[in-house]
Amino acid sequence: MRVLVTGGAGFIGSHLCDRLIDHGASVWCVDNFHLGRRRNIAHLDGNNSFHFIEMDVLDRPSLGDVFADAKFDAVFHMAANSDIAAGNADPELDLRLNQLTTTTLLETMQAHGVHRLFFASTSAIFGEASANLHEDFGPLQPISFYGASKLAAEGYVSVYANLFNIRSVILRFPNVVGERATHGVIFDFLRKLENNPAELEVLGDGHQTKPYLYVADLIDAILLAWEKSTAPLAVYHAAGIGATSVRDIANIVVAAAGTRKTQIRYTGGDRGWPGDVPKFAYDISRLQALGWHPRRHSTDAVKFALERILANGF
Amino acid sequence: MRVLVTGGAGFIGSHLCDRLIDHGASVWCVDNFHLGRRRNIAHLDGNNSFHFIEMDVLDRPSLGDVFADAKFDAVFHMAANSDIAAGNADPELDLRLNQLTTTTLLETMQAHGVHRLFFASTSAIFGEASANLHEDFGPLQPISFYGASKLAAEGYVSVYANLFNIRSVILRFPNVVGERATHGVIFDFLRKLENNPAELEVLGDGHQTKPYLYVADLIDAILLAWEKSTAPLAVYHAAGIGATSVRDIANIVVAAAGTRKTQIRYTGGDRGWPGDVPKFAYDISRLQALGWHPRRHSTDAVKFALERILANGF
Repeated sequence: MRVLVTGGAGFIGSHLCDRLIDHGASVWCVDNFHLGRRRNIAHLDGNNSFHFIEMDVLDRPSLGDVFADAKFDAVFHMAANSDIAAGNADPELDLRLNQLTTTTLLETMQAHGVHRLFFASTSAIFGEASANLHEDFGPLQPISFYGASKLAAEGYVSVYANLFNIRSVILRFPNVVGERATHGVIFDFLRKLENNPAELEVLGDGHQTKPYLYVADLIDAILLAWEKSTAPLAVYHAAGIGATSVRDIANIVVAAAGTRKTQIRYTGGDRGWPGDVPKFAYDISRLQALGWHPRRHSTDAVKFALERILANGF
Repeated sequence: MRVLVTGGAGFIGSHLCDRLIDHGASVWCVDNFHLGRRRNIAHLDGNNSFHFIEMDVLDRPSLGDVFADAKFDAVFHMAANSDIAAGNADPELDLRLNQLTTTTLLETMQAHGVHRLFFASTSAIFGEASANLHEDFGPLQPISFYGASKLAAEGYVSVYANLFNIRSVILRFPNVVGERATHGVIFDFLRKLENNPAELEVLGDGHQTKPYLYVADLIDAILLAWEKSTAPLAVYHAAGIGATSVRDIANIVVAAAGTRKTQIRYTGGDRGWPGDVPKFAYDISRLQALGWHPRRHSTDAVKFALERILANGF
């Protein structure tokens, strides 16, 4: 299988490249290093199954050239701005990086007769819905530009699946943790402690509570959903079992960082930033019915990710 | 109340301008005549409560000037490409006219401190869902660029309602009929009969069946939802009671046009064009609970609209 992975030098994208290559695929990785990093794919240098192209997916002519050369069987669209706070500071950012990258890819796939897509979506499309969210939940009322732009992209994926026969799998990611992360709660805490071991500032009251998933479990979910889906448009939720509070994560990070005298200071309020969803829970039975079971519960995922990040560097 | 109506020279927008003026509002109508027509607002020439500006909402500097001059209390965003088949032929069209007009307005409202929005949405966001659709129905899987672009716009309205305190009412329109229509089934049939009274070509098998709503009933729904909603984001469905098949509409139009020898020819297939949703039904109990009741059932709405279109010219 000849596969394009957009955002393949990013946190999740680079893990996906590794696993696709393990499974025998030839992988073309494109990344513009907006959030991606060269070090995330440095170990793949010289691997005959790996081809890296530094490129912006929105550069339509160059993207067309890559499609013409590589003759892909499938596209895994992982490129995005996943930094919600950064997106809220600049509405154009998420529109361009999350939505328009998706529609540009869909148009290019249609033009080149590529008919299989994996799209990385997010729980943020649901806004503050407090139910145990299943895939068919409504209404969809996002509270961040990130959520709105991913919802928009999902809508366009649906149109191409229905009108232009681009068979698509959408997996809505939860909070994902692991080595190679480029932002997110563990990474941010470690960075802050590096700058100031005496005090850790935690945004919000620390009671934000979400299901965390270790990245390898997510990649399992992606590949299983990919292999087992036959519908024109298949949608899944993946999440760790249970949930972990930001307060618990702060304590875990401080303990592991060995900076035991650190004072943890909470900025207060029920959320870390405008657009942050303080609590959510996913119904993952659809993916479990395919045979997916995350190996680590939420708090174990946090602990293991922290270990791996410390071992790997950040 | 000082009100901006975008797309105010369009079919529904012009009826809304009339009723807002009747209710004592000062109305600024902007339209770029993409679908709108001068004749739809000609009767308002010289009315002191009506101000017309020929302008594209996407012309951000000019839009900002209008906001600075007029100091609006509220915006009714009716401007859109509502021609689904035209949108499917050019994905940029719906992105620009439906989504980017909305986000440009939202950003401009935020910049000028305007905190009340009405947004014209559509049943097309639901794709082929066959349930009796209530406002919280999921999943949302549109099958046209029109549906995807309106879904995207709804997501952004949700973000601005939540993050930036722009209190919004979304009404998802059904098929709306009446005088001043610029496209749509009755209008299209009349145009075809004008060109060729001997044969009426009907796209699809004619069994497409939808609830039609007469435009005055829709305007009632808009104004009632507007007056009664206090939530940051309120969403409603409006539709005529019952439903009417395209086959019935063809017969009604042929009978009324007095071209009784017309042969009706069906092109076949379950839908008029790719992206057409052959059947849908709305749960309208939320709007009924506010006191809204359409005066005409679906087929009566079609017959009355036809009468008014013939009387008014098309």
